[in-house]
Amino acid sequence: MTITIIGTGLIGGSMALALKDLGIAEKVIGVDANKEHIIKALELGIIDESADMVEAVKQSDLIIVAIPVHSTEELLPLIMDHVNTQVVMDVSSTKEPILNAIKHHPKRSRFVGTHPMWGTEYSGPEAAVRDAFTGKVTVISGKNESDKDAVEMVEDIYHKLGMRIIYMDPSAHDVHAAYVSHISHITSFALANTVLEKEKEESAIFDMASAGFESTVRLAKSNPAMWVQIFMQNRENILDVLNEHISQLRKFKSCLEKENEEYLTELIDNANKIRKILK
Amino acid sequence: MTITIIGTGLIGGSMALALKDLGIAEKVIGVDANKEHIIKALELGIIDESADMVEAVKQSDLIIVAIPVHSTEELLPLIMDHVNTQVVMDVSSTKEPILNAIKHHPKRSRFVGTHPMWGTEYSGPEAAVRDAFTGKVTVISGKNESDKDAVEMVEDIYHKLGMRIIYMDPSAHDVHAAYVSHISHITSFALANTVLEKEKEESAIFDMASAGFESTVRLAKSNPAMWVQIFMQNRENILDVLNEHISQLRKFKSCLEKENEEYLTELIDNANKIRKILK
Repeated sequence: MTITIIGTGLIGGSMALALKDLGIAEKVIGVDANKEHIIKALELGIIDESADMVEAVKQSDLIIVAIPVHSTEELLPLIMDHVNTQVVMDVSSTKEPILNAIKHHPKRSRFVGTHPMWGTEYSGPEAAVRDAFTGKVTVISGKNESDKDAVEMVEDIYHKLGMRIIYMDPSAHDVHAAYVSHISHITSFALANTVLEKEKEESAIFDMASAGFESTVRLAKSNPAMWVQIFMQNRENILDVLNEHISQLRKFKSCLEKENEEYLTELIDNANKIRKILK
Repeated sequence: MTITIIGTGLIGGSMALALKDLGIAEKVIGVDANKEHIIKALELGIIDESADMVEAVKQSDLIIVAIPVHSTEELLPLIMDHVNTQVVMDVSSTKEPILNAIKHHPKRSRFVGTHPMWGTEYSGPEAAVRDAFTGKVTVISGKNESDKDAVEMVEDIYHKLGMRIIYMDPSAHDVHAAYVSHISHITSFALANTVLEKEKEESAIFDMASAGFESTVRLAKSNPAMWVQIFMQNRENILDVLNEHISQLRKFKSCLEKENEEYLTELIDNANKIRKILK
């Protein structure tokens, strides 16, 4: 089939590579407001040709929207305006605002809301990774408002990508995404700022940066354009999690202030239970 | 030479493997209060034989102390009591309390304080990793109080392990360790507790756990026995960093509450500067 990728960055680019490698896409058309991204995506073989949005939608069986969430919210109704029997899917980190943007659109049923749970801290077509999605989880959201054949096409593609599909209503998705993805980015950004604040005083500090530090701070390299939009769209859920997180940090603070080894041990023992999730 | 490893866990075990692989140690003697660790370490070829502390120190050219920091503080003076011309080094995550414990010991000059900046979230002899230290940084601390030949032996070993040595006075080390290692563990433990708190309500949440989540939370699997002692020994420095970190998180919170996209972008742009440290 012919597939259009709107947004040829990290996720769209990796998706295009996988769809071509698996023989699902005979042709990938790239749409991107950033002309340098189009040139790079052509050069890297991520897309076969470029076109403007209307032309690309017309020629395609499937359109994958892989742009920042505010842009998806804005552009999606315009994309749907040009849809006839094609299927449109998104890959956004939020689901409720996206699905609300086309709730009453006459072509709503040709849309399937999804969120493949994969990413890195890099962005742009150069960040695209081959075989990125195998073994990962993807969420399909709001499928009762989608046509059966549209859902089946998307399910089939995710199965061929080797992903496990979970179904979640949009608001539950957004709560969970705040816990398992969005808060990790906030803590990582804040931790980077904490250490950079100190660096003003002491540059030697970075000579010591270890693997543990790298692990907790690597997400702080993530793209502001993408993450500001996610944080804003999901801000109520994220605020809930952030308040809980600050109160958990305060428990550690109180243990240190009061030299309460017993409670500190209890807090860490409890944190160790994360082993049942992270193998 | 003959080397004694006191504590045959993650760091001691990995160190023993490297010293044997590089031909630096002809014989490694293991000392461990945990008899199961001794059996396991023998089985895994980490140590060649076991002995009690006094006997092991007597037979060795070099003694490496790789036990939790409180235990190091307690045991180190007793180890030094049995030292004649041997060299003793530690690998602890704190330096000031360790060096203070033997400040006035008549054999202080046979001791070299070090901290190789490597570790994982696992513990015990089974967690030992071959070739763990190559390309990493190690700190040598308080070397002016150590004999020249002792420092040279330790420097030579770290060079052969492929490590870059940085020299730092003990109190500077402890400040920097709080920033680049200890705070990462606190945020990770607290993040695990945040999410586990939520899990009481919603078990589906973990189906979605992604690589970003794993990255920021993996340190939460770390051993309480080791980390409670580190946090307690370095609590004043950690409290400074933790206060700064909570205030950085509050900036994010305030941006979300006030929908201040501009300041949020600024905070993330600033966090991105971590790229100059984490390549």
